[in-house]
Amino acid sequence: MENSTSLKPTLLYEQVAHQIAALIQRGTLRSGDRIPSVRQLRSDLGVSMSTVLEAYRLLESEGWVEARPQSGYYVRSTAPILPPEPSISAPAPVVMDVGISTLLLEVLATARRPGVVSLGISETSPALLPTLRLNQFLSKVARHADISTNCYDFPPGNEFLRRRIAKRSLNWGGSLSAEDIVTTWGCMESINLCLRAVAKPGDTIAVESPVSYAFLQSFESLGMKVLEIPTHPRDGISLEALEAAIQTHDIKAVLIIPTFSNPIGSCMPEDNKRQLVEMLTQVQIPLIEDDALGELYFGDHRPKPAKAFDTEGMVMLCSSFSKDLAPGYRVGWTAPGRFRTQVEYMKHLSTIANCTLPQLAVAEFLQSGSYDRHLRRLRKALAIQVQQMFHAIGEFFPEGTKVTRPTGGMILWVELPKTVDALQLYRQAVQHNISIMPGHLFSMTTQYQHCIRINCGYPWSSEIEQALAILGQLAKQQGL
Amino acid sequence: MENSTSLKPTLLYEQVAHQIAALIQRGTLRSGDRIPSVRQLRSDLGVSMSTVLEAYRLLESEGWVEARPQSGYYVRSTAPILPPEPSISAPAPVVMDVGISTLLLEVLATARRPGVVSLGISETSPALLPTLRLNQFLSKVARHADISTNCYDFPPGNEFLRRRIAKRSLNWGGSLSAEDIVTTWGCMESINLCLRAVAKPGDTIAVESPVSYAFLQSFESLGMKVLEIPTHPRDGISLEALEAAIQTHDIKAVLIIPTFSNPIGSCMPEDNKRQLVEMLTQVQIPLIEDDALGELYFGDHRPKPAKAFDTEGMVMLCSSFSKDLAPGYRVGWTAPGRFRTQVEYMKHLSTIANCTLPQLAVAEFLQSGSYDRHLRRLRKALAIQVQQMFHAIGEFFPEGTKVTRPTGGMILWVELPKTVDALQLYRQAVQHNISIMPGHLFSMTTQYQHCIRINCGYPWSSEIEQALAILGQLAKQQGL
Repeated sequence: MENSTSLKPTLLYEQVAHQIAALIQRGTLRSGDRIPSVRQLRSDLGVSMSTVLEAYRLLESEGWVEARPQSGYYVRSTAPILPPEPSISAPAPVVMDVGISTLLLEVLATARRPGVVSLGISETSPALLPTLRLNQFLSKVARHADISTNCYDFPPGNEFLRRRIAKRSLNWGGSLSAEDIVTTWGCMESINLCLRAVAKPGDTIAVESPVSYAFLQSFESLGMKVLEIPTHPRDGISLEALEAAIQTHDIKAVLIIPTFSNPIGSCMPEDNKRQLVEMLTQVQIPLIEDDALGELYFGDHRPKPAKAFDTEGMVMLCSSFSKDLAPGYRVGWTAPGRFRTQVEYMKHLSTIANCTLPQLAVAEFLQSGSYDRHLRRLRKALAIQVQQMFHAIGEFFPEGTKVTRPTGGMILWVELPKTVDALQLYRQAVQHNISIMPGHLFSMTTQYQHCIRINCGYPWSSEIEQALAILGQLAKQQGL
Repeated sequence: MENSTSLKPTLLYEQVAHQIAALIQRGTLRSGDRIPSVRQLRSDLGVSMSTVLEAYRLLESEGWVEARPQSGYYVRSTAPILPPEPSISAPAPVVMDVGISTLLLEVLATARRPGVVSLGISETSPALLPTLRLNQFLSKVARHADISTNCYDFPPGNEFLRRRIAKRSLNWGGSLSAEDIVTTWGCMESINLCLRAVAKPGDTIAVESPVSYAFLQSFESLGMKVLEIPTHPRDGISLEALEAAIQTHDIKAVLIIPTFSNPIGSCMPEDNKRQLVEMLTQVQIPLIEDDALGELYFGDHRPKPAKAFDTEGMVMLCSSFSKDLAPGYRVGWTAPGRFRTQVEYMKHLSTIANCTLPQLAVAEFLQSGSYDRHLRRLRKALAIQVQQMFHAIGEFFPEGTKVTRPTGGMILWVELPKTVDALQLYRQAVQHNISIMPGHLFSMTTQYQHCIRINCGYPWSSEIEQALAILGQLAKQQGL
């Protein structure tokens, strides 16, 4: 609740709305309170009436306030409007074998059934992506390409794209060059390649807890073991706990999502990122950093990745354009620091090369400035969608439910009362054509069996609202 | 030497040339012999003079004969024109850990240096591929695609393409349906997914010997062990030896290339393929079948894959369009039989999905008939190139050199005299800007350290001829 609103204010009326939302979040304005009148805001803030009215409309559309006829705007009274935030996780400090595939197979299959309300898989709605424009770039690139575009584009991959990606590191104060980068089939391939480059079957990898099921599945199929580290829902992995773990276990690599972690949504403060890199560099343990959501911040600047503090090449930065531009194009990359040669080798031997023309199309799209324009719109849309889902969960879910407050990305982590079994809830939801991800998939411990992950990548709709209402109802019934 | 020539005769003059080449291969006509005159052939075969002259020209261009002014055509006199064929391999029957990455990393790096004569990596020359036409298909597909083409195209992948691939199984008497197929990023991804679907780190996989280095590298990075089985250069893996191995070892899967094996070029007779599938089905061991070169036969019909004899879903057929159409497009597939669900799952978690538009472009290309027209040309070109390389090796390499007689594909396996160290030869060749693959990469035994693999994917040129002459010279010097 300490967080300010996630709205990214740029226009004047957005700034006004932002200030009021912050008052609500901090508890200064509470459920049922009347918010300041047009007259008061005009004089307090020195803005025009139309600005205030625009701000009201925005606050209403995002579910912060409701209009009462002839009376004004009031903080929405549905309780609890702001479900509390989960606490830091406390997984058992034990290295574990990994096995989630049977359940995951079932969940993924149902998540992709036609007609399902998709709150399961973490993805951006196609409606929010500039697909037709990007396809035009691909069409043009293909029309003018010469025959060299049909040779094996061996690792490190297309140089024109690598230069565009490297250039974007300026946004976070980095100075990557094309030579630092290897292109891949998306962030998960980047991570798989990095894991295989620095660890062998039987090795132990330290991760956040709860942890992305995709990471767990990689460990399972690569025969690696996992050590889950306590993780704070806002600040990310506990450095103290990680340091202690390093002293007591033989950890071969640390694989985390410092910026908008999956599923917990945490974003490590810059100081923590710096300390993390220093700690790992000192003991020579590589940090595999998933930064696939790094561009999808709701605040006013891009959080620096841990890579920004990497002076000795120990950070293997992994990302892609799958969440923010083109899931269907499969263009990802990694900047694996001093392990580049090994990563290129793994890439060569696992999928040989990348597909040239889609890489070129994405590079041209970046070059044209279209990507940045698109990102500005997408960030706003996601910030609003996450807020809407957050409020709806507060409205529909049983008392005692806790919800994260991500400052970027598109997922919410929901801690239900302990009486709720998330797997049972998942199976009931499937009967209603609703897909969610049960907490069972996000840990090898039994800690999160009352938790679910909710995707907010789709624009708010009555269908989604109804799905959340049903979910809440099902959870309440379980609690009885 | 028992093989007939690999020329695929379709036109009349090709048939004539084919018959004469067969006489040379069988030793009926020997070095320096004058081949039958125009008059003789016209009367013996009942063909026109121009047909005979065309046949002469073809034989000359392929290096079988040479013209002597005012005298006629003579079998080329450079000895030995026909180096003998290697014998069946005899690897030690021991399960081995795999470790080739250090050497392979070095070899791959040098193989891709600009300006190198590329006899190392097995690839088709870009000059032989219909790239511009295929790119036009992609351009058109991208221009007309709707936004659904930018969603995750989750496994099993694009249905339109899967239907086109399934339909092609008719060519070998198969009856695959779209539902049997999972699309991938190429044959190596198919194989990696199949391996991970049926085996775990520590498990033993049986393979041919010598074996593709790409397979060895997969085992290495997946922590699997390898058991090499004796393999005949024409008939492929020894079924007796494999049967014995199955009785004495706990083999989790068999991974082989029944049709135009890499590096040995063997093509298992249909009866052997049938027996192999029956044997493995009986003991419930999956057969992972690499059929990436299956379309590149030099004879008059497509050899059936082992999958053609699979009645119980134990064969995991793997292939791609990388060798015969579009290395740069990365479109591959697998028909994994009863293991489909596990393979789809591995695909989902290792690279999530495929890139939609290149899959659609390849599907349209297949649909249009362009693929079959292209294949007919490509088969002829490769058959000729392999013959040219074969003869040049016979001409330039030291006495005692043995060479395989592949009936499809694009590689030759060369067994040099045992005094030659292939690794030293490789390193000397690199100094001359020539890339070859040393036998060290194709086994965990020490059996092939006097062998090299030669890629014949590029059209004959004076540059290639010179490279082979240098290689022969270097090998002869080593023998001194």
